[in-house]
Amino acid sequence: MDVQQPIAILDSGVGGLTVAKEIMRQLPHEKIVYFGDTARTPYGTRAADEVVQFTREIVEYLAQYDPKMIVIACNTATAFALEDIKKHVNVPVVGVIHPGARAAIGRTNTGIIGVIGTDGTIKSGAYELALKQLNPHIHVISKACPTFVPLVERGNFRSDETFDTVSAALGSLRDYPMDCMILGCTHYPFLAETIGEVMGPEVVLISSAEETAREISTILYEQDKRANIETTPIHQFFCSGQPAMFRVIAKQWLGKQIELTPVVWQVSQMG
Amino acid sequence: MDVQQPIAILDSGVGGLTVAKEIMRQLPHEKIVYFGDTARTPYGTRAADEVVQFTREIVEYLAQYDPKMIVIACNTATAFALEDIKKHVNVPVVGVIHPGARAAIGRTNTGIIGVIGTDGTIKSGAYELALKQLNPHIHVISKACPTFVPLVERGNFRSDETFDTVSAALGSLRDYPMDCMILGCTHYPFLAETIGEVMGPEVVLISSAEETAREISTILYEQDKRANIETTPIHQFFCSGQPAMFRVIAKQWLGKQIELTPVVWQVSQMG
Repeated sequence: MDVQQPIAILDSGVGGLTVAKEIMRQLPHEKIVYFGDTARTPYGTRAADEVVQFTREIVEYLAQYDPKMIVIACNTATAFALEDIKKHVNVPVVGVIHPGARAAIGRTNTGIIGVIGTDGTIKSGAYELALKQLNPHIHVISKACPTFVPLVERGNFRSDETFDTVSAALGSLRDYPMDCMILGCTHYPFLAETIGEVMGPEVVLISSAEETAREISTILYEQDKRANIETTPIHQFFCSGQPAMFRVIAKQWLGKQIELTPVVWQVSQMG
Repeated sequence: MDVQQPIAILDSGVGGLTVAKEIMRQLPHEKIVYFGDTARTPYGTRAADEVVQFTREIVEYLAQYDPKMIVIACNTATAFALEDIKKHVNVPVVGVIHPGARAAIGRTNTGIIGVIGTDGTIKSGAYELALKQLNPHIHVISKACPTFVPLVERGNFRSDETFDTVSAALGSLRDYPMDCMILGCTHYPFLAETIGEVMGPEVVLISSAEETAREISTILYEQDKRANIETTPIHQFFCSGQPAMFRVIAKQWLGKQIELTPVVWQVSQMG
């Protein structure tokens, strides 16, 4: 195990950048290789076996960088493909669902937890399962918000349209006495300010991104695989679609230019 | 690996009950065997090699219960003995320092983090090391509070004496623009309300207890060692000193009677 190996992050698009940003903040010495499958985003409305296939392809692609850990920074891909990928690689594979679930269990006082995510994530019941495996008495209120990812992938984080879209999707959740809500899609932290305005200050928003980075830190420490603190890593980003919007969003979110390489998938891989 | 094996928790006294309570809350199916070394508390003013020796003795004692994980729920023992114990057992050993450090790194916005603990913990520099290994730009303000553990071990959580003691110890820390403070001793969550009153609402208090339970959850999941959710565990508690006060504090803190067995150490083990 070479501790200078990178952490591989994959997502359907730009959402995993929220996880990447938190890794950069919490673990500034770790090198990241990131793959955003922008050509095939969103994953949230795709069939499970298609998401598994896409996730496998990206993991295979990133294997050339010999990662010490694979982070499935997409809730839909975590819901459908985490167990499959774990069986096929010999490094730790971290998804974004259990970290959010564990954080919510740690934070809630009322035992009533909200979860928002894509259609695929919510229909999979993965959060409810993860929460109830921890504590069967937890009450879970779930809501699919299929209108959120397209906003983020267009870079539309703060606007009247954003507020109206978020209000329309979440208005009905305000009737429940939840005290925390899991942002069960890595795209949603881009919209966190607006979501917070709509839900009100009494609902703590749990970011899978922040919590996943924290758990990556735990696992790297537990397995003695942390990067050398002398390292100033140079991260690498890849996307399968047009790089222009990815570059704009990454600059805006990460606050710096990134080294981005567009990847052309073979036709056979286009699902 | 039998997932019905218990989690072993050890502390110098009752402080580790804060970790036990959080494990019961976050992981209600996990069985706990707990050892409080009340005959030899406090550890905070003892020499490092003495703390290592005591910790080894307790780990040996708890080995008869075949634990699947060992939790050193004492910051002083974590600072001095974690690496030693890790070398001598073949199950995961979790201390309470890194979980608090990782949580603080996740929460801080100003990058200025307060740490309070026993003399031993603060002088060891273990928190500063853990924080700076994560991010060398973090500014750490540390303060030893040797007057806190005796209050807790007497069951004196809320009183004028408690407020005066906490104010006297922490007053000087209020001059620093820290935005979070690590309760770097597992006894301190018993005093959290008073500490919060003294520090003010702008300082988020990080409980090593809550954060350690969270990390235990992460590691058990990552290693596929979680208890069966059909289980309703019966916890076992041991203490090396008089059981009366331990029983009172445990009842008050955990909200229920516990199965407590006093353990008589051999004279050769009394350090």
